[in-house]
Amino acid sequence: MIENNKNQIILAIDTYGADGGESVVIDGCDYIANQLNVFFIFVGNKSLIIPLIKKSKNLKSYNIINTLDYIEANAKGSDALRSGKESSMRIAVDLVKKDKADAVISAGNTGALLAISYIVLRTIEGISRPAMTAYFPTMKGETAMLDLGANIECDSKNLIDFALMGSAFSRIILKSSNPSVGLLNVGEESQKGNSVIQDASALLKNLNNKINYYGFVEGNDIAEGNVDVIITDGFSGNIALKTAEGTAKLVTFLLESSFKSSIFSKIGYLLSKNGLKKMKDRVDPRKYNGAVLLGLNGIVVKSHGNTDPLGFSNAVKVGYEMVRGNFIEDLKRNITK
Amino acid sequence: MIENNKNQIILAIDTYGADGGESVVIDGCDYIANQLNVFFIFVGNKSLIIPLIKKSKNLKSYNIINTLDYIEANAKGSDALRSGKESSMRIAVDLVKKDKADAVISAGNTGALLAISYIVLRTIEGISRPAMTAYFPTMKGETAMLDLGANIECDSKNLIDFALMGSAFSRIILKSSNPSVGLLNVGEESQKGNSVIQDASALLKNLNNKINYYGFVEGNDIAEGNVDVIITDGFSGNIALKTAEGTAKLVTFLLESSFKSSIFSKIGYLLSKNGLKKMKDRVDPRKYNGAVLLGLNGIVVKSHGNTDPLGFSNAVKVGYEMVRGNFIEDLKRNITK
Repeated sequence: MIENNKNQIILAIDTYGADGGESVVIDGCDYIANQLNVFFIFVGNKSLIIPLIKKSKNLKSYNIINTLDYIEANAKGSDALRSGKESSMRIAVDLVKKDKADAVISAGNTGALLAISYIVLRTIEGISRPAMTAYFPTMKGETAMLDLGANIECDSKNLIDFALMGSAFSRIILKSSNPSVGLLNVGEESQKGNSVIQDASALLKNLNNKINYYGFVEGNDIAEGNVDVIITDGFSGNIALKTAEGTAKLVTFLLESSFKSSIFSKIGYLLSKNGLKKMKDRVDPRKYNGAVLLGLNGIVVKSHGNTDPLGFSNAVKVGYEMVRGNFIEDLKRNITK
Repeated sequence: MIENNKNQIILAIDTYGADGGESVVIDGCDYIANQLNVFFIFVGNKSLIIPLIKKSKNLKSYNIINTLDYIEANAKGSDALRSGKESSMRIAVDLVKKDKADAVISAGNTGALLAISYIVLRTIEGISRPAMTAYFPTMKGETAMLDLGANIECDSKNLIDFALMGSAFSRIILKSSNPSVGLLNVGEESQKGNSVIQDASALLKNLNNKINYYGFVEGNDIAEGNVDVIITDGFSGNIALKTAEGTAKLVTFLLESSFKSSIFSKIGYLLSKNGLKKMKDRVDPRKYNGAVLLGLNGIVVKSHGNTDPLGFSNAVKVGYEMVRGNFIEDLKRNITK
């Protein structure tokens, strides 16, 4: 164990929760460690963690907190809160609360991570609800979207908070200098949508010193990349996210079947392989792994459970960049009182 | 002009509204006419319609109702209702109301078509609200989804109606013998979603003599084709539909760019062309053109405005099949009193 050098960013890593086990988590950290000035605190089963670290190439700055308790994949958030106090997830979040870590990364149960983070870290003053946020490939680059499922029902104040948080996220993670914000709706005409959306749109227009509000956007604008940030309630955001994932899978599946359809297309496939790899790389979900729970007094990153080391490493990188870019300070400066 | 033979299905065609003008509509009808036992009533500008019919190959059973009035693309539904009584759309819907046509097909203003159809035709007894319905390609075949935007907010009764209507639609258009129905949600676990969804799910479980209820589905299940029918409110349905369209466009766009990336992939593209064409055909939006407004005392089909003759012909075919399959009778038999 090596003592933390004060310039390092400290990341608390919940080593449970990945479908592929601890090796996904530790190998993911190993993969990215030499690109970041980072100190890891691994929280989990020490006897499983140590052999993996021994095999690693780049893991030199770290600490281990041993616990055998963890949150089950199907546990309810409320149960995780009550009975999971010695769980790896809870201990990792507590480290952020106690200022012993700058951010927490977990591939565990989403509902439990939401509940624990919300209760332990609490929202920043002026923000009512945290929101799950991620970014996606588009025709023009990358677009951030929130909320992706933390809040099934939202009021207009929540949507305004999401606009502020999404703008700060876009500045820090996507390097947008003046991120445009679109409000997801069923049409671009001003009279479309329900009263919450109508109210939110009116409020956003009045916040033009803080938010670069574009107006309403539609589902197709997500992939077209017409704005830097898309805000919506967690129900629609989750539907859109999963619909996009399913559609990308369908088109890729049909593409692969089509290459098997004749001897010519099989040869064509071999010749196009490098080009196709570029396309697949561009939409590789591992490169977009790591949804951030924004609006809390601490950085919380949720990795997909079924990711691999490359995917987990991206979640680690997102957490690192959020700390390095001072997300919380950026957001606090812009909160409407 | 030829008199209608009584065995023919009579379709009222609004000839205004397609971005490409009357030729899209008339050529679309011409394209499909010899495959169907159909009599067309074209409603629109006679002096533009006649030359197009003269050029056509298969248009022999038809009538023309001349009107120069039409609904503007950006007109509000309420305005279209008040001032559009001599419009081609209104006259075409009125023909269905007066039993002079079996179905109406229009590529015009969606909001106006919804408003006019709802007021003129009214819903079938037992159905509270009509729903916009279409079907999409999936990994396993085709899946129907409703509502796609007619009802921004829905209660649980609306969702039950959608399940009944979607099941009848699936039986008739997609030839499913016992269509499974999934309720779109943000997770498959029983406690997920808001109270409307929870109530709807409980009600659907009790209707197992009429509805083959599968349970909750998520956004990715749309493209994966895990159920025959997906029901949701019009806000989420519209977001999902447009997100899927945008994502398919993005993946195809990236694919085409990747083929231009080297001389090898250009040659590969030429060799794979037939295979790729199969893939593109499979997701060709023209083959899925034609959303049906279900639940009214009459069949109303909305074509995309920006489609071409092939796309319009599919909307015509959907209208025809809905009549031929006795959709309204099928639905009435299954309505819960």
